Amino acid sequence: MTDLQAEPTTARTDDTPSLTPEQLTAAVHAITDRARTASRILGRANRARKDRVLLAIADALVARRDLVLAANRADVERGRAAGTSDYLLDRLSLDPERIGRLADALAQLAALPDPVGTAVRAETLPNGLRMRQVRVPLGVVAAIYEARPNVTVDIAGLALKSGNAVILRGGSAAAATNAALVGIIRDTLEDHGLPDDAVLTIDEFGREGARVLMEARGRVDVLIPRGGRELIQSVVTNARVPVIETGEGNVHILLDESADEEMAVDILLNAKTQRPSVCNTVETLLVHSRSGAAPAVLAALSRAGVTLHVDDRSRAFLPEGTAAPSATDDDWNREYMQLDLAVRTVDSVDEALQHIRRWSTGHSEAIITNSLASSEEFVAGVDSAAVLVNASTRFVDGGELGLGAEVGISTQKMHARGPMGLAELTTTKWIVQGEGHVRR
Amino acid sequence: MTDLQAEPTTARTDDTPSLTPEQLTAAVHAITDRARTASRILGRANRARKDRVLLAIADALVARRDLVLAANRADVERGRAAGTSDYLLDRLSLDPERIGRLADALAQLAALPDPVGTAVRAETLPNGLRMRQVRVPLGVVAAIYEARPNVTVDIAGLALKSGNAVILRGGSAAAATNAALVGIIRDTLEDHGLPDDAVLTIDEFGREGARVLMEARGRVDVLIPRGGRELIQSVVTNARVPVIETGEGNVHILLDESADEEMAVDILLNAKTQRPSVCNTVETLLVHSRSGAAPAVLAALSRAGVTLHVDDRSRAFLPEGTAAPSATDDDWNREYMQLDLAVRTVDSVDEALQHIRRWSTGHSEAIITNSLASSEEFVAGVDSAAVLVNASTRFVDGGELGLGAEVGISTQKMHARGPMGLAELTTTKWIVQGEGHVRR
Repeated sequence: MTDLQAEPTTARTDDTPSLTPEQLTAAVHAITDRARTASRILGRANRARKDRVLLAIADALVARRDLVLAANRADVERGRAAGTSDYLLDRLSLDPERIGRLADALAQLAALPDPVGTAVRAETLPNGLRMRQVRVPLGVVAAIYEARPNVTVDIAGLALKSGNAVILRGGSAAAATNAALVGIIRDTLEDHGLPDDAVLTIDEFGREGARVLMEARGRVDVLIPRGGRELIQSVVTNARVPVIETGEGNVHILLDESADEEMAVDILLNAKTQRPSVCNTVETLLVHSRSGAAPAVLAALSRAGVTLHVDDRSRAFLPEGTAAPSATDDDWNREYMQLDLAVRTVDSVDEALQHIRRWSTGHSEAIITNSLASSEEFVAGVDSAAVLVNASTRFVDGGELGLGAEVGISTQKMHARGPMGLAELTTTKWIVQGEGHVRR
Repeated sequence: MTDLQAEPTTARTDDTPSLTPEQLTAAVHAITDRARTASRILGRANRARKDRVLLAIADALVARRDLVLAANRADVERGRAAGTSDYLLDRLSLDPERIGRLADALAQLAALPDPVGTAVRAETLPNGLRMRQVRVPLGVVAAIYEARPNVTVDIAGLALKSGNAVILRGGSAAAATNAALVGIIRDTLEDHGLPDDAVLTIDEFGREGARVLMEARGRVDVLIPRGGRELIQSVVTNARVPVIETGEGNVHILLDESADEEMAVDILLNAKTQRPSVCNTVETLLVHSRSGAAPAVLAALSRAGVTLHVDDRSRAFLPEGTAAPSATDDDWNREYMQLDLAVRTVDSVDEALQHIRRWSTGHSEAIITNSLASSEEFVAGVDSAAVLVNASTRFVDGGELGLGAEVGISTQKMHARGPMGLAELTTTKWIVQGEGHVRR
C-alpha cells in the first residue's frame, strides 16, 4: 500500500479534519441531503438537456485544462516527494492528450441512448388496468476509488447521463486534481440550469468521511468501489449501503485435450499479453494432461516474456531449459496483472471446474476446445459472470460486447452481473393507471 | 414480540444447542456446502423434471397430511401453553384445507414458465462473436421467516422451480411443523433422483445459527426475510450476504382536489378494508384541502369501522360527532395493518410528495384525481416501487400484475423493485462463443 491509494485501506490521518464523530456524520449527511435534492431535479431532466451538459463539460475540461494540469502537477510532485512508485504516478498524471481523451469519452456518452424512461414491461391487463414498469434513476450514487483522476470524470459522466446525483471519494493523493475537475463540472452544471449538487465530493472529510458514506443506508442508493482488491474488499466489508462489486478478475483458461494449437497460441497470447494490467486478462492456464497444444502454447508465452508459475505435472510441457517457478496456492489465488501466469495440469473438464470453483473470483473463464461435449460441460459448470468458448477473455468488456459506456464489470450475482452499462445505474418504477379500479 | 416470531428479534435460548461458536459456524457452513453441491445439480435440471417433483411434493403433502397435522398440533399446543395470541396461533395452524391450498400453490408453480435458460440478450456481434446473456439460478437462497408453515412450502417451491437450493430458518414456534414439511419435501426430491439437500433447514441451530447464516458471504447468494418490520430490519442490519428487503408497506393515497367522489369512496374502502393485514393496504390518506370528496370518503370509512387518526385540519371533514384520535408522528410512521387510517390535510401535490418522502417505506403510493397535471406531478415525484393513478393500492401484487408466483414485494432499488416473480430468483451468465477470436 502507498498513500496513492484510497483512504479505506490506508492509515492516513493528515487529511481528516478535526471534527467530532457527530459533526463529521452531520457534515457527510448534509452532503447526501444536497445530492438527494439535486437528484430529484436531474432525474427529471430529459436526454437532450443531459447530453448538452455532458458536451459542455467536455468543452470546459479542454478550455480550462491549464487549471487542471496545474493542480495535477501539485499532486504529482507531492506524490514524488513521498516516494510514490512510477506506476502509481503514471496513473495519477494528466497531460493535454489525456484530458482530451476524457473529453472524448464524455462526448461518446452523450451519443448513447438514455436508459431513463425505457419500459421494461408495458401491458394492459385483462381488467383494463394499464401497467408500465419503467427505468428510473437510482437517485444518489457514490463512488470510492483510488488516485486516478480519470475515474472522477468517468463516474460523474455516467451518473449524469443516467440521471443520478453522484458523491465522489477519490484517493487523497489526487485531491487537488479532483477538486479542479469537480469544480469545472459543477460550474458547467450551474451554467446549464442544472443543480451543481448533482456532483459532489467528500474528499475533504478524509477516511472517516468515507466510512460515514459507506454506512449511510437510505441516503446513498448504491456505492461503487473502483480499484484493486484491497479497496473493494474494504468497501464490501464495511458498507451498509448496497454495493456493486466490480473488477476483481482471477480469470482462467482451460486448454482442452482437443484444442487447436494455432488458435490456442493466439488466444493465450492475446489474453495474457495484450493488456496485462486489466481485469479480463488471464491469470491461470489449466492444461488438459493430454493436450497436444500445451508445449507450443507455453513456449509462445515464454518467448513473449511471460513468467510461468507451474505445478509439477505442467513442467513436462515446458521447452527444455525454461526457468519456471513452482506454483503454490498463492499463485492460484493471485491476480498478477502483469506478465505472469499460473499453469496447472488437470485430467478432465471436471477437475478444471473444481479448480475454478475453488479459486475464481467469478469474473470470466474460457475454454479452448474442439469438443462439443467439453464445451457444454464447461459452459454449464462455470458459475462466473462470463464464460467463453474459443475466444480471448479480453472480450469481456462493455465496449466489446456492445453496451457502449461501461460502469465496470460486476462480479456479484445481484442486480448486475458482468459488464455493466448505463441501464445498471437505474432501477424501475411500476406505474399503474386505472379508472377507479378496485380489487375483487 | 412473542415467541412465535423468528429468533433474530427474540431472546430465546432454549433451542440454541450447546456448541462453541466455532462448532456452530462449522455446522452451519457444512449445511451451506451441502446446499451448494445440491444447487449445481438442481440448477441443471430441466423444467419437466422440476415440475414433476413440484407436483409430487403437492401429492405427498396431501397423502402424508396426518403427519404434518400431528406435528402442527404439537406446535400449536406448545404455543397456547406459552400464552401466544389467537392471531399468531391462527397463522401457525394448519388444517386439511390449508394443506390442500399449499398443494394447489405448488401445482400452480409447476404450470409457470421456467426462467432458467431464458436469454436476456442474444446477439451476433459485428466480428462474428456470438453472445448470449441467459438467466441462471442464483445458487443458494436462504429464507428467514416467522412461525408460518405456509412460507416453508412456498419458498421451497419457488426456489426449486427457479433451480436454486434453499436453506430455511423458520420461527422456532413452528419447528415441529417445519421439520415434518421439510422431511416430506426431501423424501420426494430423493424419490425423483434430485438431491434432497436442495431443501435444508437450520432450525436446529437456533438464533445463533441464523446469525451465522446471515454472515455467510459467498456461501449464500441471497437472503430473503419474510415477516414483520422488526424481523426484516434485524436481517437487513445484521446480514453480510445480499438481502432482498420485502414487504414493509407504509402506503399513501392522495385524494386530490379534483377527485371524483364515488371513485374515491370505492378505492379507499377497497384499499383499507378488503384485507387490512397485508402490505399493499393503505395506511395514510392525504387529503387536498380543497377536496370536495373528503367528507364522503371519511364518512364511508368511518361507517366501515375504520378508526381515523386525523390532524387538526382534517377534523373539519369528519361527520359531526365522529370520534377520531389526533394523529402524531407515530401515526405517519405506522403500518397499522388493521382498520386504522392516518389522515392529513395538504394544500398541494407537492406538500403530499414531501409527506410521502419523509414517511414512506417505498412500497406503493396512489393518487385519486381528475387532473392530468396532478397525476403527472405525482407519478414523477413519487420514488416508490409502485405508483398508481385512480386504482386501489391492493393491485400491487405479483398475481394481480401478471407475474404468476410472487416471491414478495421488494422495497429496495437494487436487483428487484416491487412485485418479484421467479425471474428475480435468477442471475445471468454471459456466454460468448468464437472461433479463435482475439481482441485487436
